Amino acid sequence: MKCRKCGGAAALELRRHNAAFCSPHFLEFFRKQVREAIRKHRMFTTDEPVMVAVSGGKDSLALWDVLIEDGYRTTGLYLDLGIFDYSVESKAKCEAFAQARGVPLIISRVEEEMGAPVPIIKQVTRRPACSGCGLSKRYLMNRTALEHGFPVVATGHNLDDEAATLFGSVMHWQMDALPRQSPALASTHPKLVRRVKPLYRLSERETAAFAFMRKIDYIVDECPFAKGATSIAHKETLNLMEEASPGAKHNFLFGFLDKARVAFERVDNVELKECTRCGQVTTGELCAFCKLSEHVRGAMTGPVTRGAPGAPRAPHAPDPA
Amino acid sequence: MKCRKCGGAAALELRRHNAAFCSPHFLEFFRKQVREAIRKHRMFTTDEPVMVAVSGGKDSLALWDVLIEDGYRTTGLYLDLGIFDYSVESKAKCEAFAQARGVPLIISRVEEEMGAPVPIIKQVTRRPACSGCGLSKRYLMNRTALEHGFPVVATGHNLDDEAATLFGSVMHWQMDALPRQSPALASTHPKLVRRVKPLYRLSERETAAFAFMRKIDYIVDECPFAKGATSIAHKETLNLMEEASPGAKHNFLFGFLDKARVAFERVDNVELKECTRCGQVTTGELCAFCKLSEHVRGAMTGPVTRGAPGAPRAPHAPDPA
Repeated sequence: MKCRKCGGAAALELRRHNAAFCSPHFLEFFRKQVREAIRKHRMFTTDEPVMVAVSGGKDSLALWDVLIEDGYRTTGLYLDLGIFDYSVESKAKCEAFAQARGVPLIISRVEEEMGAPVPIIKQVTRRPACSGCGLSKRYLMNRTALEHGFPVVATGHNLDDEAATLFGSVMHWQMDALPRQSPALASTHPKLVRRVKPLYRLSERETAAFAFMRKIDYIVDECPFAKGATSIAHKETLNLMEEASPGAKHNFLFGFLDKARVAFERVDNVELKECTRCGQVTTGELCAFCKLSEHVRGAMTGPVTRGAPGAPRAPHAPDPA
Repeated sequence: MKCRKCGGAAALELRRHNAAFCSPHFLEFFRKQVREAIRKHRMFTTDEPVMVAVSGGKDSLALWDVLIEDGYRTTGLYLDLGIFDYSVESKAKCEAFAQARGVPLIISRVEEEMGAPVPIIKQVTRRPACSGCGLSKRYLMNRTALEHGFPVVATGHNLDDEAATLFGSVMHWQMDALPRQSPALASTHPKLVRRVKPLYRLSERETAAFAFMRKIDYIVDECPFAKGATSIAHKETLNLMEEASPGAKHNFLFGFLDKARVAFERVDNVELKECTRCGQVTTGELCAFCKLSEHVRGAMTGPVTRGAPGAPRAPHAPDPA
């Protein structure tokens, strides 16, 4: 197999693009895809400070690497979920990455903000860990970005993540989630920052190859709570389809974005208010994060009321970053 | 396991309904589902003549059986596709069924109408057999119904068929096919009859059980051309999901019908004309059936021009009836 660009020995075959690349030209291809994503969806410019949500995994660190190299003004945000050794190790990877490149890293601890780390939230709510975790991450990403003056948060979601989320939304026809499935979510309120996914054009295999070639030291282990998650089952289903028909995942996601997404867009008449406790955007009086936090703190001090009705039902969403 | 109705020994467990039934109560359940489909979508009344497209398989013969027992004025339509022994045997099953119950059966031969049977169409067009076959069946069902004064054609598509077709349309976001995915397609032109699918609420396993309990003699073999068809791969994917989560197929199809389908409905400005050759409805001058027929007849008399551009590209759709 030869590199499509230079004819040298290929290091990686990309079946869905019917192409192969040597290492240097794969790195070029990868960066071009990120640039194309940023350009096409006007994600951010080099004039803006960009917060990059990093988990210590291959995707978010690969993203940060590309953005640094391309001269963006980035700051990392590591959310410490308090998930045993997994969090200790992944935090160390982020710190080492930031230090080696001389870029700033903000660390926020879920335990401090919510009142308990993810394993305790899981216990108290008796819901899958991903539920309270996803909710906390989305909330803290937005709030931290606001507090530090970042207009935009970039996450490391890749093509596989996005296709799996879309697949889950479609299997249940989640009419709320479908219009929000996008590589770039605009700010619809002064207290909501933009959320962008510059890796949405690149597969998990490609981000892994990029991280490997760039010698990025990332955490290889999956989150211990991810086992059995629906999103992983969806990824497996999509992988089987991809094997039978290369490009299936890409066509599924891009077909949605190009043709179908608009069909689900509606003028939402939902009035956005500010949470009476934390001031963040919500549709009710108290935001979902504060509700969960109250429940968790109550359960930890008073008698344990497991699975109380106040526990929010966040849709399960993979959040690699 | 006990029957939900009478507490007797259950013959069949329906995991997605979290229920089990003995044979008599399963037959009752089955018929109720068909009645509910007919009622909900106003498919037809006992005052109208109904054409039932029968393939000799379990689904269409089970459907015919229910409609006869419920007092509908049915006539069978068997389309002889000329697929070797498969067609010979399936035709015999339909004839025996019709004769035993004293109901009329119309037989139409694709070879006569198109100029060649399905295996030759496949050869000439160099497309999957299902392409020309599906096109021919849809065309001949409609034309035969019109010619014999039937306002409606009922087919034996079951829940698995419908979910698999929807799955295929969604994986490619076929924006033309999605709004047409429905248990009941209204007549949008005087020369288009209604098309209805009274079994869309019942799974393949359920139609097989019904046919077995009712001692219907049907053809068990699959069409020899079905092997490797995308629709079968989609069914396998959905079966894996159903196994992991009973009701997945049902939720996927019914969620679409209840919530999402409306999002894909558009006012089609496509002008419907009548084919200059056969008078049937088309969007061009010559309808797809006549185009294909011309191509097939030309190839069989003159020098073979394989895969000519005139060959229509009908979307692959499973047509069990």
